[in-house]
Order: sequence, then C-alpha cells, then structure tokens
Amino acid sequence: MIALGIDPGTAACGFGVVASDGGTLRFVDAGTVRTDPAQTDAARLVELEAALDHLVERHSPDRVAVERLYFQRNVRTAMAVGQARGVALLVAARHGLPVTEPTPNEVKVAVCGNGAADKQQVAVMVSRLLGVTLNGASDDAIGALAPGTGA
Amino acid sequence: MIALGIDPGTAACGFGVVASDGGTLRFVDAGTVRTDPAQTDAARLVELEAALDHLVERHSPDRVAVERLYFQRNVRTAMAVGQARGVALLVAARHGLPVTEPTPNEVKVAVCGNGAADKQQVAVMVSRLLGVTLNGASDDAIGALAPGTGA
Repeated sequence: MIALGIDPGTAACGFGVVASDGGTLRFVDAGTVRTDPAQTDAARLVELEAALDHLVERHSPDRVAVERLYFQRNVRTAMAVGQARGVALLVAARHGLPVTEPTPNEVKVAVCGNGAADKQQVAVMVSRLLGVTLNGASDDAIGALAPGTGA
Repeated sequence: MIALGIDPGTAACGFGVVASDGGTLRFVDAGTVRTDPAQTDAARLVELEAALDHLVERHSPDRVAVERLYFQRNVRTAMAVGQARGVALLVAARHGLPVTEPTPNEVKVAVCGNGAADKQQVAVMVSRLLGVTLNGASDDAIGALAPGTGA
C-alpha cells in the first residue's frame, strides 16, 4: 500500500510518498515541486499538474492524502492554496485514486497521538515512524509526509 | 474575438461567452455547470474540468476571464471557490488561452462605469450591452457574462 501525501501550494507544493506493509511504514520519496515565479498563476498550475501527474505515474500510489487546511492567514492566501488544492484533488481523482482530506488535527492525532502537537513534534514522529532522518527536508515535504504517514 | 467568462464554483460554476466585433458585443452562450452533489469534491472537480474543456472546444474563445474574488464569506468558502478556480485557470492555460483575472471592481467599472454598482445594475448593463434579455438567467451565468462583457 503506497500513500502519496500532498501539502498544496502554487509556488511550492510538498509531496511525501510512504509505503506500508502490515504495520511497517517505509519512506519512499519526498520533496517540493517549485513552479516558475516568472509565470502566471494559471501557467504555474499547469506546471503543478504535470509534476503531480508524473509523481502518480512514478509511484503508483493506492491513495492520496491532501490535508484539509482551513486555517490560512487570510482569504487571499486561502484562495491561492485552494487553487493548488483543486489541481491536486483533480489529478488524484482523474487517476481513479481515493482521496482522503484529513484535518491537521486528525493528522497530528494519527502521527503523534496528540491533536495539539507542534510542527517540531510532527517532524520528530514522522522521522521516527519512517526510520529516516529528515534533517534538511523542507517544511513542505514534512507537511506532505505527515498525512501520508497517518492512517 | 470571443471571451469566455467563468464564475467559479464546485457545486455551480457560471459561464458566459461573449463575441466582440469592433465595438459591438454579441451574446453567444451562458449557463451554469452543476456537478453531482453525491460525489466527492475531487470527483466533482473532474466533472467541472470536463465541462470547461467541452466549453472551450465548442466556443474556441480567444481569452478567458475569471473574476478575482477575495471577498468570500470565510476561509472555508474561499478554499472551495479556490479549488474550482484552480481548475478553471488550469483548463484555460492548458488550451494556451490568455487569462485575465479582473477584480469585481474592475468588472463593474468596465460594464457599468461605476465600481460601486450593485448586482442588479450589473445585470441591467450586461443585458443592454449584449442586447439580450437575461430574465431567468442564473446569478452564476450573469456573474460570468459580466467579466466576459467587460474589456
């Protein structure tokens, strides 16, 4: 069972791929898709679509997890994240993949056993559960590995 | 010159197609794409993508106008509109179409000469400029015709 976690954004979109075999989790891949800041928003979404399509083809995930983010700083940020989120949901559904949309609280409970865990605790637990060192991994990548790591 | 205006939404997405010949505007098409409420958000975005692709193929617009909406009721609504907006921008850019993202104020100035115009005034002016009666047209359709009608 392979899960692809996505931390959506137009400028920088995190992704994390986690394999599970019975109760064992294994780190597969993680990183950040960065789109060309010289392009329009619309063109950047096309870049993002291509990158996510490529990830799905490369890793053949069985499911996709896109965190449900309602706590953006403001409506303008929420709109920008929503646009990237729409592309991520679209790509997953077009590939026939089931999509889960856990809240940050659900992800924290699944990963840390505590819905109030902070970023640092999430990073530590993701690292421990996957048996990898995440030093140098971007916040976007960890933000995408967490929902992939949680159920 | 054909303009496709889009008033984005996942449940209901308005569209308006306007042709301009020199200074003359002509109504071509307008309506609302409605997606299946029994489906997941992700599946509804796939439906929306197919419907918008179909509209672009049917009308071969030269440009697409998607209103820039920052005045959503709240972050949750903004996120949902953003997701549909992302799909609209993506479809336009994938077809190589230039996308404009006028603010509501810019649309009202272009259509009514007054950035503070209300919905009713916008509907009256769109109707007058296009020489059609909009009785019975949905708010979504008028909301999409307005940016198509404005420059």
